[in-house]
Amino acid sequence: MSVLVVGSTALDSIQTPHGFRDRLLGGSASYAALAASFFAPVRLVGIVGTDFPRSYLTLLRRRGIDVTGMEQRDGPTFQWSGEYEPNMNRRRTLRTDLGVFAGFRPELPDGYRRTPWILLANISPELQLHVLQQVYRPRLVAADTMDLWLETARTELLQLLQQVDLFILNESEAAQLTGEASAVPALRRLHAFGPPYVIIKKGEHGAILSGPNGLFLAPAFPLARVVDPTGAGDSFAGALLGYLAAGRGFSERRLRRAMIYASAVASFCCEEFGVIRLAKLSRSAIEKRVLQLRRITRF
Amino acid sequence: MSVLVVGSTALDSIQTPHGFRDRLLGGSASYAALAASFFAPVRLVGIVGTDFPRSYLTLLRRRGIDVTGMEQRDGPTFQWSGEYEPNMNRRRTLRTDLGVFAGFRPELPDGYRRTPWILLANISPELQLHVLQQVYRPRLVAADTMDLWLETARTELLQLLQQVDLFILNESEAAQLTGEASAVPALRRLHAFGPPYVIIKKGEHGAILSGPNGLFLAPAFPLARVVDPTGAGDSFAGALLGYLAAGRGFSERRLRRAMIYASAVASFCCEEFGVIRLAKLSRSAIEKRVLQLRRITRF
Repeated sequence: MSVLVVGSTALDSIQTPHGFRDRLLGGSASYAALAASFFAPVRLVGIVGTDFPRSYLTLLRRRGIDVTGMEQRDGPTFQWSGEYEPNMNRRRTLRTDLGVFAGFRPELPDGYRRTPWILLANISPELQLHVLQQVYRPRLVAADTMDLWLETARTELLQLLQQVDLFILNESEAAQLTGEASAVPALRRLHAFGPPYVIIKKGEHGAILSGPNGLFLAPAFPLARVVDPTGAGDSFAGALLGYLAAGRGFSERRLRRAMIYASAVASFCCEEFGVIRLAKLSRSAIEKRVLQLRRITRF
Repeated sequence: MSVLVVGSTALDSIQTPHGFRDRLLGGSASYAALAASFFAPVRLVGIVGTDFPRSYLTLLRRRGIDVTGMEQRDGPTFQWSGEYEPNMNRRRTLRTDLGVFAGFRPELPDGYRRTPWILLANISPELQLHVLQQVYRPRLVAADTMDLWLETARTELLQLLQQVDLFILNESEAAQLTGEASAVPALRRLHAFGPPYVIIKKGEHGAILSGPNGLFLAPAFPLARVVDPTGAGDSFAGALLGYLAAGRGFSERRLRRAMIYASAVASFCCEEFGVIRLAKLSRSAIEKRVLQLRRITRF
């Protein structure tokens, strides 16, 4: 079955200790769609300007991604530039030029409305809610977010969470949203907002799932060298939904395995700038890394 | 078989967001010996002053710990007082009064010299080396350390590492000693100092082992409430050696399981101030938590 991915599409300029790259394919939806495409058919909704390189659309199409929902509008594509600290644990946004993204109002093509697996990748909660009004009886709705919305659109985010099955966020966002510095109490409070399943992403420390049957700790794949962590969280969410969509039904057992595959894909994402590693990734390389994750966590 | 634990014994005053406790039983050797005692016979070497409460010696003896090697000398016991930040991730030492610990020169009773499993808990590398000169053909030597020695006794520490089978340290110490912010490259550099096995402790994020057969990721038990993290790392090291000592031989498979037991014991340690939770812990409670760790990591 298919996954619908709605989010941002951007051109990223990234500085890390390993170098600088300009106008890379970026945005939450680009990473998520590419990551999901290794497991299931993907439908992408985003917006780009007239300056968006044809080669990036080709890249998405080559991975079998349906880009019918990708709107092209007069004006510049959303541009983001950021810089990572030497230890890569923190990044600083240098510049954000919204361009045509400022007028983004995601409208689903008719053929997308019955997509069973929905990933609301990081965009404003208001837009995420707008997408939900257009889908018909989805199997599962997952939503990611970012720190910005916790400050500027908290009301809309809380409204969204009442309609979401799986909420995915990172550690600092969970702390910011709940006031709890530690994952376990934060998870309890997050469930109270609505979602029966919550995943807190902890970067190199893995991810923790909380659901009706308790907790699950997913390891991160230990990397010898992180070149660029941009999009790792979006790739995690994309691979997760892709893996789920490839199965017959939803179960917590399947969700756990999906998190392992998501960890594997997210680790590849960090190995090169932008989506470069994802673009040349293969399902067999992912399977190999999942086996390694199994081997290094077995006791 | 027995474990020899050499380290500090102290009286701790601890302030956390959950309260203040004065003159608690503390020190690396106290935590490690108690943690090891759930698995194997323990021989303890430390030093205390005349003010050391009899009840603390009774507590150690009740757990079957051999305190023949505990020297009592005229003067005050080592006193440490510290305060944790609200999120418990960092602590500040308020005061350190070495007392009789300043003259500590660990001398092993004759009956201790052939102990097969040696844990050099956190004391100066010079004293750790002095202990190694007194042991006869140990099965395995493990050493813990702290940030202070990386600055003040780096030469002695590097000398010690050449004689250690298993080096245990925390994340920030690994970064400080190797200049590598990330675990995998740090582990590579640590092996170059000598130890075939290295464990980096990451607190609530678990621990990572590196050995001849590669890596192993041990999860931390996710706690709903951390009352006092003091001694969690020492308890981890103690339980690890205790579990190893209870087995017939050493294998990496056994070391992995030892890390899981160590994680379980360390998590209990954080649930109350000082050694309070460890003092009333049972083997069956540990087994139950190990089962839980299995359940929340299975995929």
